[in-house]
Amino acid sequence: MQLDFSKLDGLVPAIVQHAQTGRVLMLAFMNEEAFRATAETGYATFYSRSRQQLWKKGESSGHRLIVKDIATDCDADTVLLKVEPIGPGVCHEGYESCFFRRLKGEEWIAAETRTFDPAAVYGGAK
Amino acid sequence: MQLDFSKLDGLVPAIVQHAQTGRVLMLAFMNEEAFRATAETGYATFYSRSRQQLWKKGESSGHRLIVKDIATDCDADTVLLKVEPIGPGVCHEGYESCFFRRLKGEEWIAAETRTFDPAAVYGGAK
Repeated sequence: MQLDFSKLDGLVPAIVQHAQTGRVLMLAFMNEEAFRATAETGYATFYSRSRQQLWKKGESSGHRLIVKDIATDCDADTVLLKVEPIGPGVCHEGYESCFFRRLKGEEWIAAETRTFDPAAVYGGAK
Repeated sequence: MQLDFSKLDGLVPAIVQHAQTGRVLMLAFMNEEAFRATAETGYATFYSRSRQQLWKKGESSGHRLIVKDIATDCDADTVLLKVEPIGPGVCHEGYESCFFRRLKGEEWIAAETRTFDPAAVYGGAK
């Protein structure tokens, strides 16, 4: 069985879940090269749609993701990574998880506090 | 803040996580109508890319997903649902989770047993 990269123009969504707590930390995309790099190196590597290049998560921040387990779904068109995060969070806005906004009625509310200062980690850039 | 449906031609990925155990059960897609239906009814509703129509999860199988919480990420282009599943599993192949295959070396291995008989639940169709 091979991953099916055909449905999203060469990409598959990659869900990133904390291996110990089970918290979903982020969703990114992988092309075949990013998937292979992830499997071979043991560090999560994605494909940045905005920058159109491989994205070694944590390369600039140091917040890399050590991959403990890789699963795929019934249609082989999505990947689920269980990771051990290095550092206090994965989100460029300074949160442990990118999913820090919850729907309350019809509003999205940021319902938790930052775990690090993104300006100190990323400087001016994301 | 509004969800950003522009990056995938009107869709956002929707990660579905078991509200109690934290297991990631499936990934599907939502258009704006599916998102609104999910938020308003409290049952997970997706957009089927293959059938090109709204997909009320569990409508045929009875295995509906009661939505307990909805989150979005920093870029507002992905949704995370925490759900209470009705029934023994969400996967049309008869598993609790669609993510039943794990990477071992270079092979994807189905590493668990089915929780229901898909032929009995879905008949000949998915």
